[in-house]
Amino acid sequence: MGRSLVFSTNISLRFSQTPRSISPRIHLNQSHKFTANSPFGYQKVGILNSNCTRKLCTRALMSEVSNQRQFPKVGAKSTGPIPPTQLIEVVETAAKTGSEVVMEAVNKPRNITYKGLTDLVTDTDKMSEAAILEVVKRNFGDHLILGEEGGIIGDNSSDYLWCIDPLDGTTNFAHCYPSFAVSVGVLFRGNPVAAAVVEFVGGPMCWNTRTFTATAGGGAFCDGQKVHPSQTDRVEQSLLVTGFGYEHDDAWITNMELFKEFTDISRGVRRLGAAAVDMCHVALGVAEAYWEYRLKPWDMAAGVLIVEEAGGAVTRMDGGKFCVFDRSVLVSNGALHAKLLETIAPATEKLKNKGIDFSLWYKPENYITDL
Amino acid sequence: MGRSLVFSTNISLRFSQTPRSISPRIHLNQSHKFTANSPFGYQKVGILNSNCTRKLCTRALMSEVSNQRQFPKVGAKSTGPIPPTQLIEVVETAAKTGSEVVMEAVNKPRNITYKGLTDLVTDTDKMSEAAILEVVKRNFGDHLILGEEGGIIGDNSSDYLWCIDPLDGTTNFAHCYPSFAVSVGVLFRGNPVAAAVVEFVGGPMCWNTRTFTATAGGGAFCDGQKVHPSQTDRVEQSLLVTGFGYEHDDAWITNMELFKEFTDISRGVRRLGAAAVDMCHVALGVAEAYWEYRLKPWDMAAGVLIVEEAGGAVTRMDGGKFCVFDRSVLVSNGALHAKLLETIAPATEKLKNKGIDFSLWYKPENYITDL
Repeated sequence: MGRSLVFSTNISLRFSQTPRSISPRIHLNQSHKFTANSPFGYQKVGILNSNCTRKLCTRALMSEVSNQRQFPKVGAKSTGPIPPTQLIEVVETAAKTGSEVVMEAVNKPRNITYKGLTDLVTDTDKMSEAAILEVVKRNFGDHLILGEEGGIIGDNSSDYLWCIDPLDGTTNFAHCYPSFAVSVGVLFRGNPVAAAVVEFVGGPMCWNTRTFTATAGGGAFCDGQKVHPSQTDRVEQSLLVTGFGYEHDDAWITNMELFKEFTDISRGVRRLGAAAVDMCHVALGVAEAYWEYRLKPWDMAAGVLIVEEAGGAVTRMDGGKFCVFDRSVLVSNGALHAKLLETIAPATEKLKNKGIDFSLWYKPENYITDL
Repeated sequence: MGRSLVFSTNISLRFSQTPRSISPRIHLNQSHKFTANSPFGYQKVGILNSNCTRKLCTRALMSEVSNQRQFPKVGAKSTGPIPPTQLIEVVETAAKTGSEVVMEAVNKPRNITYKGLTDLVTDTDKMSEAAILEVVKRNFGDHLILGEEGGIIGDNSSDYLWCIDPLDGTTNFAHCYPSFAVSVGVLFRGNPVAAAVVEFVGGPMCWNTRTFTATAGGGAFCDGQKVHPSQTDRVEQSLLVTGFGYEHDDAWITNMELFKEFTDISRGVRRLGAAAVDMCHVALGVAEAYWEYRLKPWDMAAGVLIVEEAGGAVTRMDGGKFCVFDRSVLVSNGALHAKLLETIAPATEKLKNKGIDFSLWYKPENYITDL
């Protein structure tokens, strides 16, 4: 394809054996350090980066990257009067405190009650939220807090709004089915500024966690290592993820059609059942994109910042600028975002034209934002 | 509900706070040992059993269990001239040998080729199969072997047929997306007799495995601990799983409709992307049921035995007696099987009435079976 590639003698280069794929394949001994700014098709550059430093690039590939359409940032420009390091420390402590409550409960029977026919809540959701709130209040007693279980509490005049999902993926938790997570995101004047997601992986006999963190402008990390999304720019080489909420309305039906359409043309659409986890998987580069209608701020506040700081893109499903009070979200590796919107945006516009409500789901009264 | 329950003083009993649920909820200190023969709704009795011994039962609940419709067994009646302990040792060694190849590759770049537009194969599939074959041939040089990558080899006059999937869930593996697995199942005269599935869980930063094993009549185990499916008998309290193959034919479209229908009425339908793993999750009790059209013997041979030996049920999707050469499979916890078939069987019958091929997909020429 006329590409020239600069690489060290320790790296050999092959092209896939089928004419469909023009992505270079890089083979290297794990002990050699490398990275790339280039789109490697299916390759998990984000993961490789954990062992690697940046060395490899080409002008041809760089120009492909610069051709990618840019989407407006959703993260805040500044963390305000609280330094990012101080904020993220408390955010991470809060999420980990919640995760300790969840880990303590993970092998015990569940006490389940219902918000709806299939919308569960367990004692663990409530205990995790209480433990997280205790950390937040002890450190920032004057901040506003929106918890999935407890609703809104605190001072409406605060610039900071904490969005807390004490147990994202409660149905999975109830069944011991991975994954689920504890998700804590903080907004400054309405925009995400710090985030932590503790993901539970594995399941019975092998429970484990990994922790994703991000601050606005400071990058995204998994267990302290910088993460990046994949650079796949072809739908047919992508692994996608979506979710279906408890409300089985027109948006739910539209997403069934999107699920079918993308299952047909991609490598697959996964349905794992925990929004924060699905977004972190995009940040980590193990899935190319994730979308869902009707999520709540506590489902999204942390995840969207982690994806964006990893280098991915975040919009509403109609392609518009996203905020955490919105009723739809599409996160992707960036390279694939515009292509996905070619299908997802018109489907969403159709819903809007039918009069389906896509106004902001909720914004705390009197909470002042830069939105 | 007129139920009497016998329990020790260390176990307290509650009922769910909603009138919908009549399932008893058992709370216990983890140090106390217990189990139950009863349907506990959402409770993961199989998991609890790992720490527990059987103590608790009631006549009322026992009669519910005995009312469950029985489905014909798919496992062989005997392991033939090779004792089960000898056979399972080699099966497990073979699967673990393959899994070592996969684990070695899990953090390295993939070299992918294509069987179809989105049907992948990696070098690791081939290397894992070669390693497994080496173990089988060394121990049982005269057995017949069907490998996903290498096809059929060995002696057609053998009573034993090894069905090997060296990397089940290749797409997930290619993306570092859990789960995927190595699956080895052995048939005696056409019926499964020994099985091992090594499941890869977690993902980057936290890869891990757990190993499921089963022998006909000998029970199913995960990392050496006996496993059982859940006893949930209500669709609305169940977590289901399905898959969509590479062939986007009428059966694929029918399963899209089943996915929508069951997403609507259950706690959710997961789509994880590795058949052997999905079946082991039913055996482990973290999902209630799994179905898929168009799987191959190497996808199913190990998983169906593990589900059956754990205490679950296995049929074709039309409700007929299953064999591993069939073109559809439904595995469940047993308690839910008949209810699921009320929807799944008529949908499958419709396909048959349309002339869609549901004859045996493949059976090695001259291989003699008891089917």
